[in-house]
Amino acid sequence: MINISFPDGAVRQYENGVTALEIAKSISEGLARKVLAASVDGQVWDATRPIYKDAALKLLTWNDPEGQNTFWHSSAHLMAEAVESIYPGVKFWVGPALEKGFYYDMDLGDKKMTEEDLLVLEKKMNELAKKASPYQRKEISKSDAISYFSEKGDEYKLDLLQNLQDGEITFYSQGGFTDLCRGPHIPDTGFIKAIKLTGISGAYWKGDEKNKMLTRVYGITFPNQKELDEYLLMLEEAKKRDHRKLGKELGIYTMNDDIGPGLILWMPNGTVIIEELEKLAKETELEGGYKRVVTPHIAKENLYLTSGHLPYYADSMFPPMEMDGEKYYLKAMNCPHHHKIYDAEPKSYRDLPYRLAEYGTCYRYEQSGELFGLMRVRCLHMNDAHIYCSKEQFRQEFKAVNDMYLKYFEIFGIDKYVMRLSLHDPEKLGQKYINEPELWLETEEMVRNVLIETGVPFVEVKGEGAFYGPKIDVQIWSAIGREFTLATNQVDFAQPRSFHLTFTNKENTPEIPLIIHRAPLGTHERFIGFLLEHYAGKFPVWLAPLQARILPISDKFMDYAVAVQAKLRKAGVRVEIDDRQEKIGKKIRETELMRVPYMLVVGEKEMNENQLSVRRQGKGDLGTQGVDAFLEMITDEIQKRKSGE
Amino acid sequence: MINISFPDGAVRQYENGVTALEIAKSISEGLARKVLAASVDGQVWDATRPIYKDAALKLLTWNDPEGQNTFWHSSAHLMAEAVESIYPGVKFWVGPALEKGFYYDMDLGDKKMTEEDLLVLEKKMNELAKKASPYQRKEISKSDAISYFSEKGDEYKLDLLQNLQDGEITFYSQGGFTDLCRGPHIPDTGFIKAIKLTGISGAYWKGDEKNKMLTRVYGITFPNQKELDEYLLMLEEAKKRDHRKLGKELGIYTMNDDIGPGLILWMPNGTVIIEELEKLAKETELEGGYKRVVTPHIAKENLYLTSGHLPYYADSMFPPMEMDGEKYYLKAMNCPHHHKIYDAEPKSYRDLPYRLAEYGTCYRYEQSGELFGLMRVRCLHMNDAHIYCSKEQFRQEFKAVNDMYLKYFEIFGIDKYVMRLSLHDPEKLGQKYINEPELWLETEEMVRNVLIETGVPFVEVKGEGAFYGPKIDVQIWSAIGREFTLATNQVDFAQPRSFHLTFTNKENTPEIPLIIHRAPLGTHERFIGFLLEHYAGKFPVWLAPLQARILPISDKFMDYAVAVQAKLRKAGVRVEIDDRQEKIGKKIRETELMRVPYMLVVGEKEMNENQLSVRRQGKGDLGTQGVDAFLEMITDEIQKRKSGE
Repeated sequence: MINISFPDGAVRQYENGVTALEIAKSISEGLARKVLAASVDGQVWDATRPIYKDAALKLLTWNDPEGQNTFWHSSAHLMAEAVESIYPGVKFWVGPALEKGFYYDMDLGDKKMTEEDLLVLEKKMNELAKKASPYQRKEISKSDAISYFSEKGDEYKLDLLQNLQDGEITFYSQGGFTDLCRGPHIPDTGFIKAIKLTGISGAYWKGDEKNKMLTRVYGITFPNQKELDEYLLMLEEAKKRDHRKLGKELGIYTMNDDIGPGLILWMPNGTVIIEELEKLAKETELEGGYKRVVTPHIAKENLYLTSGHLPYYADSMFPPMEMDGEKYYLKAMNCPHHHKIYDAEPKSYRDLPYRLAEYGTCYRYEQSGELFGLMRVRCLHMNDAHIYCSKEQFRQEFKAVNDMYLKYFEIFGIDKYVMRLSLHDPEKLGQKYINEPELWLETEEMVRNVLIETGVPFVEVKGEGAFYGPKIDVQIWSAIGREFTLATNQVDFAQPRSFHLTFTNKENTPEIPLIIHRAPLGTHERFIGFLLEHYAGKFPVWLAPLQARILPISDKFMDYAVAVQAKLRKAGVRVEIDDRQEKIGKKIRETELMRVPYMLVVGEKEMNENQLSVRRQGKGDLGTQGVDAFLEMITDEIQKRKSGE
Repeated sequence: MINISFPDGAVRQYENGVTALEIAKSISEGLARKVLAASVDGQVWDATRPIYKDAALKLLTWNDPEGQNTFWHSSAHLMAEAVESIYPGVKFWVGPALEKGFYYDMDLGDKKMTEEDLLVLEKKMNELAKKASPYQRKEISKSDAISYFSEKGDEYKLDLLQNLQDGEITFYSQGGFTDLCRGPHIPDTGFIKAIKLTGISGAYWKGDEKNKMLTRVYGITFPNQKELDEYLLMLEEAKKRDHRKLGKELGIYTMNDDIGPGLILWMPNGTVIIEELEKLAKETELEGGYKRVVTPHIAKENLYLTSGHLPYYADSMFPPMEMDGEKYYLKAMNCPHHHKIYDAEPKSYRDLPYRLAEYGTCYRYEQSGELFGLMRVRCLHMNDAHIYCSKEQFRQEFKAVNDMYLKYFEIFGIDKYVMRLSLHDPEKLGQKYINEPELWLETEEMVRNVLIETGVPFVEVKGEGAFYGPKIDVQIWSAIGREFTLATNQVDFAQPRSFHLTFTNKENTPEIPLIIHRAPLGTHERFIGFLLEHYAGKFPVWLAPLQARILPISDKFMDYAVAVQAKLRKAGVRVEIDDRQEKIGKKIRETELMRVPYMLVVGEKEMNENQLSVRRQGKGDLGTQGVDAFLEMITDEIQKRKSGE
């Protein structure tokens, strides 16, 4: 008998050689139908692999990232089986799981595969899946493996075998297909209930353009049809909501070859959004007792040697400018500049917490191939701040930062979010982590308690903290369910030491403050990219570049339209008149396309009665309203930053 | 007889060999007493030099810059005469007039001169001035001049003589002193009624540190004591108002060696002022129909080749960063970035005037020796905008820009200002000036008419326009009478052509727009530097970093103070509580020193009656007021941006 311990702490005894699937069955048949793989002493295994020693077991289902990963890896094998049955003689390179779905690279010899062939392949995969063929694991010696693939004439797998040793080589087979594979896999193909092959492209062998071009087929699978349908809908919706497409259509941003890749030119409509976001941040930070500063975008090399950005972060920085015998760098972070402001005047405990905020512009070098719309850029406007506080103040300050996140989530209608708390690894203190064991434990505990108190969903990850302290990465999901990394939130014990920052405490002795780095709204670039998708370009009124458009039925009503415009503008509403000689239907259609929240149609009746025919974007006619009543409604919506839903 | 023409167009006949002074006397004795020099056919001459041909004459007095220049140059000679009488054997190098005053460099041999000796020297100068010795001009051959100074053993003047030719060498003498000098000079030393020697320092001969160190004495003189007194008062006041001193005292800005010279770190108090200025600019520009944009701080080399900044302006730019095989430059101007935004979407006449505004941050290389506080820096935040308009729209647009200047002058209490209109020179079209003769004349005329219409004081300067069009430099004077260059305002025909900018006109054909570059508030750096001096750090309430400070008489009144603070803060007032355990007298004195406009003293009576004892900085006690009444008063002062005088 062996002892199996479960995540809830329970320990039960099982026959030696029991499998995770058998254990699941012993609990319930329903559970067994969901088990895709198992974590055995922290390693992901086949649920069907016998266990021969005491072990900590976690059953992995579709709800676990490792469960999905295994599912998609097995789906790649299922696809390979289908390909081999249709294209005999095909040779396979690698077929990994992706964050979403999987692909397989293959050499089809002199055959070709097209988009249409994918439908045939999908059909074949469905057939094979229904057979519920088990995935079977077999340990094999290197020489036997070489013989197998030599016989098959498969130079790709032989190439893979070169780097493998006896004792670590396994084959996996299902149906008529066998592959060199480390595994693990799901119990059988029957788990795969819904299949979609999403694309086909060329891919050089080993990513080297001097090599042969292989065929790469992408796919995604689910344990039921409903999830696939939802996923495909989300993809379609994401395509419509692509921030690059909307960014161009709505005049949000542009780029230019003469300026450079990854350098965003914010056009007038995008700048309105930037200014509204900054207004929100400034109001919120003013309330939170922050002071604002403005710092230059460059500094001498020495500043970044002190901060540790050089040389550790040098690859992500722009190259230096050499001037007056000195090297100047564009700043990749605002912290060192803020530290110098903290240090410009002596500080006492009365000055703390000292909170410095700046929408600071940083420059980071990203490979040009990595650049992507607003999501990966080289110039970032960061909602940055640094809080210098004593250890006693830390908990309260960290809670206030956390509350700020929650406030923003509510304003932007972000319902799904997770904070990922990265901790230190005690074994790597003094190497990967600053050697302050007590401060680590203390602040980790404080951060954890704040997260628990505020009821924020969070996960803990050991050994992924920053060098200088525990950090929180904030993951959010857009309205259509896509995941974004918004911001990080970090505790720092290292920089106050390297910059020799101190304050005089109540005992009149110098003490080193803690620093919290925080940027709840992330960068304008990434956050506005997220918002474009999240709102599908239909911004709530307070953020909309143009909030209302007056549509006169004919020129006869222009004077009235101008008077209404003047009244609304005086109250701070962003409003324009569509003064073109066009039919009212066309004016409405085009204003809808511009995603302007309110359309105000004015004709004979409206003019005579000092009224407006109000239309809401996407909702249609709201009836007629007096000008004052409309003004009251829209200003209330703007001031309260209503979501408009 | 010769014909002398006067600035008013009159022409009169005089004896051949008449002097300007004699002509002045023939008009009035009073005038003659004021004539310091004369402009004869555009050249500045001694008023006592005979005129032997027909000429255009302008009598120069203290009101003319050339008159002052001559006065101070003559004063340098007077000082040299005094020095020679006290330090026989002294040798002189050069003694020019300055923008304000004069200096003379001298070799005192083994003698030393100290600050105290200056008083003795001043006394001697006054004695010599009273003698009213005439300055006498004498043409001399090079060989005679060499003999004269060889005999004197004066190697400095011999050195100067090396570069002079026969026919251009003159001596000037007054009293017992003779100097090699080009002139001109005032009629006699009696004109110099008020003398102040302002400083003494060492200066290497020819500015080369390998040469001997000479003694440099600075001085200033005036035609009457009153002007000297006013000047000394202004100097003293300027010293108290020095923006570097106030900038540090009031926590406005700092600099740091690790960041770099000329790179301003704006501290919290300075940032409040920046944000208030930006708010003013944004409100004003929104009203003026501007759209805002945000652009990166760098661009590829090619952008600046197109704009012409490279190579013509390369010395003023930061050196490039080399990345991905391209050179990137920090921007020295915002215009090229704005042009790319103009060009990102096709424009029609319906889109014009298209006004793009940005508080853009530019980087300019200044020699480190030229850097000076906020006045000469390397990183500038510019109140920039570019207006793209048709020729027909130009006049209206230019007038609107001019009105914006006047609005700002009023807000900031700038009573004295002059616009300097720089025009092209028709002879240099196609070389120094873009070859668009008609556009030059047309826009110059339009600009001139706008200046005349609005009644703005202006002067015209031929041949000092920019390459691409006429420009206006705006000179302003601070409250204590010091002159600052605030901003320039330029018309541009060249960049729209080099960037191929067009719009589709009503005839549906492409047309090239005109561009107006404008920055009425200049840069934050220079403008805040100016404001510090202008207001002596006593900012009007709307600009004051801290607008009110609550001073509780004791801790018993802290709750009331906190409640008042909350109420004021909710209304947007920047207010703090002085919660230290200090006597009220000390709290008031220190808050006065911090230049906080309002001090709100709260004690027993105030608490019981919901009142405040209000003190105004520099004005003293204003009596008690209800909290609501005070709130109404201060918010009115803030909203209307009252000057507080």
